[in-house]
Amino acid sequence: MLSVRELGKNAKVASKILSVAKKEKNEALENIAQALVSNADFIIKANDIDIKNAKDNGLSDAMIDRLSLTKERIDSIAQGVKEIIAMPDPVGKVLSGNTLSNGLNITKVTVPLGVIGIIFESRPNVTADAAALCLKAGNCVVLRGGKEAINSNKAIVEVMRDAVYKAGLPKDCINLIEDTSRQSSIELMELSDYLDVLIPRGGAGLIKAVVENAKVPVIETGVGNCHAYVDEIADIAMASDIVYNAKTSRVSVCNALETLLVHEKIADKALPAIYDKLSEKNVEIRGCEKTIAILSDKAKPATEDDYSTEFLDYILAVKIVDSIDSALEHISNYSSGHSEVIITNDFRNAEKFLNHVDSSAVYVNASTRFTDGGQFGLGAEIGISTQKLHARGPMGLENLTSTKYIIRGQGQTRV
Amino acid sequence: MLSVRELGKNAKVASKILSVAKKEKNEALENIAQALVSNADFIIKANDIDIKNAKDNGLSDAMIDRLSLTKERIDSIAQGVKEIIAMPDPVGKVLSGNTLSNGLNITKVTVPLGVIGIIFESRPNVTADAAALCLKAGNCVVLRGGKEAINSNKAIVEVMRDAVYKAGLPKDCINLIEDTSRQSSIELMELSDYLDVLIPRGGAGLIKAVVENAKVPVIETGVGNCHAYVDEIADIAMASDIVYNAKTSRVSVCNALETLLVHEKIADKALPAIYDKLSEKNVEIRGCEKTIAILSDKAKPATEDDYSTEFLDYILAVKIVDSIDSALEHISNYSSGHSEVIITNDFRNAEKFLNHVDSSAVYVNASTRFTDGGQFGLGAEIGISTQKLHARGPMGLENLTSTKYIIRGQGQTRV
Repeated sequence: MLSVRELGKNAKVASKILSVAKKEKNEALENIAQALVSNADFIIKANDIDIKNAKDNGLSDAMIDRLSLTKERIDSIAQGVKEIIAMPDPVGKVLSGNTLSNGLNITKVTVPLGVIGIIFESRPNVTADAAALCLKAGNCVVLRGGKEAINSNKAIVEVMRDAVYKAGLPKDCINLIEDTSRQSSIELMELSDYLDVLIPRGGAGLIKAVVENAKVPVIETGVGNCHAYVDEIADIAMASDIVYNAKTSRVSVCNALETLLVHEKIADKALPAIYDKLSEKNVEIRGCEKTIAILSDKAKPATEDDYSTEFLDYILAVKIVDSIDSALEHISNYSSGHSEVIITNDFRNAEKFLNHVDSSAVYVNASTRFTDGGQFGLGAEIGISTQKLHARGPMGLENLTSTKYIIRGQGQTRV
Repeated sequence: MLSVRELGKNAKVASKILSVAKKEKNEALENIAQALVSNADFIIKANDIDIKNAKDNGLSDAMIDRLSLTKERIDSIAQGVKEIIAMPDPVGKVLSGNTLSNGLNITKVTVPLGVIGIIFESRPNVTADAAALCLKAGNCVVLRGGKEAINSNKAIVEVMRDAVYKAGLPKDCINLIEDTSRQSSIELMELSDYLDVLIPRGGAGLIKAVVENAKVPVIETGVGNCHAYVDEIADIAMASDIVYNAKTSRVSVCNALETLLVHEKIADKALPAIYDKLSEKNVEIRGCEKTIAILSDKAKPATEDDYSTEFLDYILAVKIVDSIDSALEHISNYSSGHSEVIITNDFRNAEKFLNHVDSSAVYVNASTRFTDGGQFGLGAEIGISTQKLHARGPMGLENLTSTKYIIRGQGQTRV
């Protein structure tokens, strides 16, 4: 079993070749898509061990479902890889350029980031998705998945490494840390000699640990404490639809709604309508005093903590506010900077909300559930950044690149 | 004296106002430019205390010179602020956008980063430059300068805060940490509740400490172990001019040349010519065995360390290589990723060098000394990034912004 350092070093060496590869990248991805399907039995056999261990360890049905690989799921992963093949190569794009008065010709071009570390939890599909996206952008990866999926991950990575090699690229373009101890995770976070970037994918706890401990530049992804604000003048049916969609269409994701703010002048009518819609899915309401005055025993009292919680469940925190300014202040205090929406027919308030809310995606009259690379037309995403450096919001292929300046001269020296 | 935390919080609060300000920003910069000049005596008086302390503490003449403020230097700082006024506002720029088939209108716009921490060493001009650039891009700053310049910094910041206030913006757009202990520096690095980014400006030691200890996203700047490679087929006169300019025009800066690589087939002719030129400035040559075989006692033997050292002095490490591939490998092993140049008349080698060298600026036939925001036509710079995330190479105003997605809908929900 190779150490984290050895894997990082291997990735760095392979990156010298991968970073300047062109057509081999799509060939490797073609091979990967084919190999995943033709080796489905091999992968499922390894996955069976993970599933058995998960059952023995008493993991929840939901977790076991996330861990499970079937022929259909592997086909779907291979389909995802094919979509990446169809996308344009993000490397070598000329972003800007000019020729200075001294004759120097300067162009700014996109280049791979180099070596990307990815720390993630139990879904084995992330292994293939993330490695394929990174490879398309010319980056080697060092993957560190959760221990629950280690047998599946080993099988998937073995298949992918062989497929990459058949395209004439080094196997070490894709590397898996087989040691799933806490120590290996810490070593990866400190591997600044070899890693250019580290991307954590998972729950709030994992992301916080990585952000606090990494010595490598990190792109923070994921945590979404998303807000909807129903303004004084708003279409109540639209508000109900949007809140219902944002809260209940998929509760476990980061772009799901967690807190609803309602202007006090529309609350009497809007809240019962929204409640009726949400009750179809038995959503629990945790509200402020005014909310409870309107919904009476249909709502429970909210604690301060409820407003800062990413429930990822059929629970919604509700607060009645006296103005858009109070709504903006609440969002400023509690939001994780992911996605927020105002439902309004007031032009000035819509613009004010768009301008003042400091989040990666700010909406007027649409569900926060659209914050997603595929929905935005960016293609497959490696995650949704909630930080402000480098990438913000859904991160597609272009965010897996850096830039460099290329300068062509005829002997110029600086005065 | 406010604590680092209090200053951070004040900056965060002010940032809500500054981030949405438009014309007030240039008004504030106008006031700053004027106030720096009209308060020159006040600033110089404070600077005198720093100079006296520096002399008492036996600081070198070079350091005392860097620390010194005169009427002329203050005029020059004010002139720098005026140049920033003339630049376009980097905030609110629409970078891309489209309307999806479901009618959702999505635009990606530039927004301020928020609150920027800057840790720097003794030059008091950085205080004004950095704060003015950040303000133009809608960012509040928390400045942490070196203890040698604390009195100058306090005076400059006081003048700037008053000038900002007169433009209707909060004084807390600009904040100075007056405690110059190591502890205050650590507190700033860990201030993730309030800081969006931290930029260290200074020597390798400072930058390393910040990169390793910060819990806030960092933009790494500065360290430049720059290389020139003289290829087999090259104009020797051009090579001599470029090496001379890159090494000697200003030895103390990050884009100065530190190592020269020469192809063995041109070394017999090129090295003596380059040496003759460099000897005008008494540059010490530290070379490999083959270098010494050619230059004999004009060169000292190089140690392994010499190839990884940013001398910032009249010293040049030299190595004779047997091919462009050996040159690329040496650069890959020793470069800090700042600036490298090939001097060649071979088209394929030029393209190979541009493609394979993984540095922020890669040159053919021109001096590395051009790696500079002003020289590149980007305007004033906050530093030169040697990392790959967010910004690489000279960082101008546009690198002091982030982006957000703005989505306007008519009630859309996700299927």
